[in-house]
Amino acid sequence: MLRLYDYLPSGNGYKVRLLLTQLAIPFERIDLDILKGETRTAEFLQKNPNGRIPVLQLDSGGFLAESDAILYYLAEGTPFVPSDRLDRARVLQWMFFEQYNHEPNIATVRFWMHSEMTDERRAMLAGKRKNGYAALDVMERHLAGRRFFVGESYSIADIALYAYTHVADEGGFDLGTYPVIREWLERVRAQPKHIPITQG
Amino acid sequence: MLRLYDYLPSGNGYKVRLLLTQLAIPFERIDLDILKGETRTAEFLQKNPNGRIPVLQLDSGGFLAESDAILYYLAEGTPFVPSDRLDRARVLQWMFFEQYNHEPNIATVRFWMHSEMTDERRAMLAGKRKNGYAALDVMERHLAGRRFFVGESYSIADIALYAYTHVADEGGFDLGTYPVIREWLERVRAQPKHIPITQG
Repeated sequence: MLRLYDYLPSGNGYKVRLLLTQLAIPFERIDLDILKGETRTAEFLQKNPNGRIPVLQLDSGGFLAESDAILYYLAEGTPFVPSDRLDRARVLQWMFFEQYNHEPNIATVRFWMHSEMTDERRAMLAGKRKNGYAALDVMERHLAGRRFFVGESYSIADIALYAYTHVADEGGFDLGTYPVIREWLERVRAQPKHIPITQG
Repeated sequence: MLRLYDYLPSGNGYKVRLLLTQLAIPFERIDLDILKGETRTAEFLQKNPNGRIPVLQLDSGGFLAESDAILYYLAEGTPFVPSDRLDRARVLQWMFFEQYNHEPNIATVRFWMHSEMTDERRAMLAGKRKNGYAALDVMERHLAGRRFFVGESYSIADIALYAYTHVADEGGFDLGTYPVIREWLERVRAQPKHIPITQG
């Protein structure tokens, strides 16, 4: 059985949990406490040299890291990845946007608020806020007139961007002026076999 | 003919130039000066709502953004992307690592040094330095005993990570204590049809 090294509050872990559930693939979840350094042990660094969850352990014993790479691996050949070559690349475009422009701002501030707001972090807050809202602006513009991010059907690009957008308020981001994003969140939530981030 | 919206000093643009050259695909290059805001005009935001180069304009007229998504689009079905499903996902794993852990630190400091070192940027320098060296540490550990990042053959994961690693010194990163990375840089440079970052 697939084994997912995970941390329940993590949106990156949630992406994989959500897709596995929607694909009806059974998996075992191993919860690691990232606040206690459980992903930086010598043993875990053998699984992912970058010391982060999620990591997927395959039936072969091999390991795969990076949430969006895991999504792609699991979804290839299913309706969650477009069959058209250009649309498939556009799914990757939005997943790279998610990891470069969205996650380091919106997810990071949420993590700081859940864990500890140090002086060093507080000094970076205004920049993170500005860049996070800039990412939301890009999403709002792109989704106007569209049902989903790519090719008008639900894909792993939507899963990747849903994970931290739907809990952006936990990092103090206000979606009040983003009606298009809020409608898209509802469409994602209405997909078959949807689960909340709190479900392990 | 493919059209690449580009900025010559950009490692993200260079990735695409390098792969197109190695695939022997002809392309036209449109140079935009990002320091003059040429990627934030209303016209360019129609091409990429995120206002960044590189952007690839296809023969169909469509646009594709995010350097690593462009690499994947161009390389799918060629020897630059592994045919094995897990290895293909591992290529993506290293490209997401590049965009999340490597580029925002190593490329960003180089860009600051090329453009302007403001007080705000100077305050973030120690953090960027620490995280950039942590990314280099991960690469050094992973490459030990390996010729390339995935499956022992040159792939777009190597292109993605080569782009800013080989000019890390321009951002003040010293590769002196990274012998494994330096040997890998030589192997990448020795690939057929390699071009330098300065070549448009």
